[in-house]
Amino acid sequence: MRKVFQAELHQIGEGLVEISSLVGEAISKATAAFASADLQQAQEVIAADARIDFLQNDLDERAIDVLALQGPVASDLRMIVGSLRMSASLERMGDLARHIAQLTRLRFPNTVIPTSLTGTFAELARLDILIAGKVTELLDTRDLALVADITGAKAEISKLHKSVFTTMAAPQWQETPATTVDVTLASRYFERFGDHGVSVARKVSYLVTGEWQPEDFLAG
Amino acid sequence: MRKVFQAELHQIGEGLVEISSLVGEAISKATAAFASADLQQAQEVIAADARIDFLQNDLDERAIDVLALQGPVASDLRMIVGSLRMSASLERMGDLARHIAQLTRLRFPNTVIPTSLTGTFAELARLDILIAGKVTELLDTRDLALVADITGAKAEISKLHKSVFTTMAAPQWQETPATTVDVTLASRYFERFGDHGVSVARKVSYLVTGEWQPEDFLAG
Repeated sequence: MRKVFQAELHQIGEGLVEISSLVGEAISKATAAFASADLQQAQEVIAADARIDFLQNDLDERAIDVLALQGPVASDLRMIVGSLRMSASLERMGDLARHIAQLTRLRFPNTVIPTSLTGTFAELARLDILIAGKVTELLDTRDLALVADITGAKAEISKLHKSVFTTMAAPQWQETPATTVDVTLASRYFERFGDHGVSVARKVSYLVTGEWQPEDFLAG
Repeated sequence: MRKVFQAELHQIGEGLVEISSLVGEAISKATAAFASADLQQAQEVIAADARIDFLQNDLDERAIDVLALQGPVASDLRMIVGSLRMSASLERMGDLARHIAQLTRLRFPNTVIPTSLTGTFAELARLDILIAGKVTELLDTRDLALVADITGAKAEISKLHKSVFTTMAAPQWQETPATTVDVTLASRYFERFGDHGVSVARKVSYLVTGEWQPEDFLAG
């Protein structure tokens, strides 16, 4: 029984790694499509999101089965409840990658972002991709050194997100309101993607150390 | 034992009603402050959000204790797991009310919204307040007739949210980019608030009927 249980816990962990890895692919493709107005690639991201949703639902069902059949306690229980929360964050990261792809599709054949912000969004993309990659590695290895990389990348994203708003408030900003709307939404999507990555990282950290930081539940 | 367990389940249900009721207060006050540039009221919403976060954390801890000590199965287990998810959605609704209050504070003594959109945002506010109220009632009574009211209100919000973007894309829109950014973010906050309300409503519906609609896990 114990052996079956451990195998099931292990499978849930592997399920999270798989979902996170698909989220990493989604954000890589979505941001590439976004930067180059690549409709084909944007469509692929939009279509692939259903797979992430399916895998999240499947993982949650398995986690609930383990709760019902094994009645885990203590750290095993926390791990399963934590998995349910992390899968929700990962699913949401997939949605945000899809939103970025949908913006790309909406503005095709134009790019969403004016050239004055190309560099900033390239950097935001790099950081989101980095976060997704580190989250996958963290889920796989439980190497907590990765947590600081993830929160550090998120801090850089926050600065860039603010700088986008500063750019749009400056007199030099002569773009149309439609572009201002798009840039606002896009910047928000890139930022929220990072937030959810941090949320997953903190939960892994908590599950490994048992120490919950006061800001953790505030950070959602 | 069974009696204690039922009492604990009941308390978790009451905890959700309490959080939802605080979320209802938060969105009522936040949208009132937003409409009238009321700094004092905005500050109150921002300060009160910590209480929602605390109650969510507390409820989640109690739910995990019940899982550990009672090892519930079947519908009781689904109810507890569902509670963890619903509490996360409610907490996020509180965050969004706080974001609306923070925008209000940022632009004080001006209003965030130009007069041309006052009516639209008053209607968005009415619908979000309605959703919060119906969600609280639904959690309290499990009267599934309320679910259609909630999804109906959300459908109206989606239309208004789109109309805001149409307004901003029209040649008559002569507001500053900073205002365009604010309106975009505000409209998104009002819309996401409704999304989370629908998410809670669908989970209650599922817990009562045991029937999961295919779109439910896609709707997150």
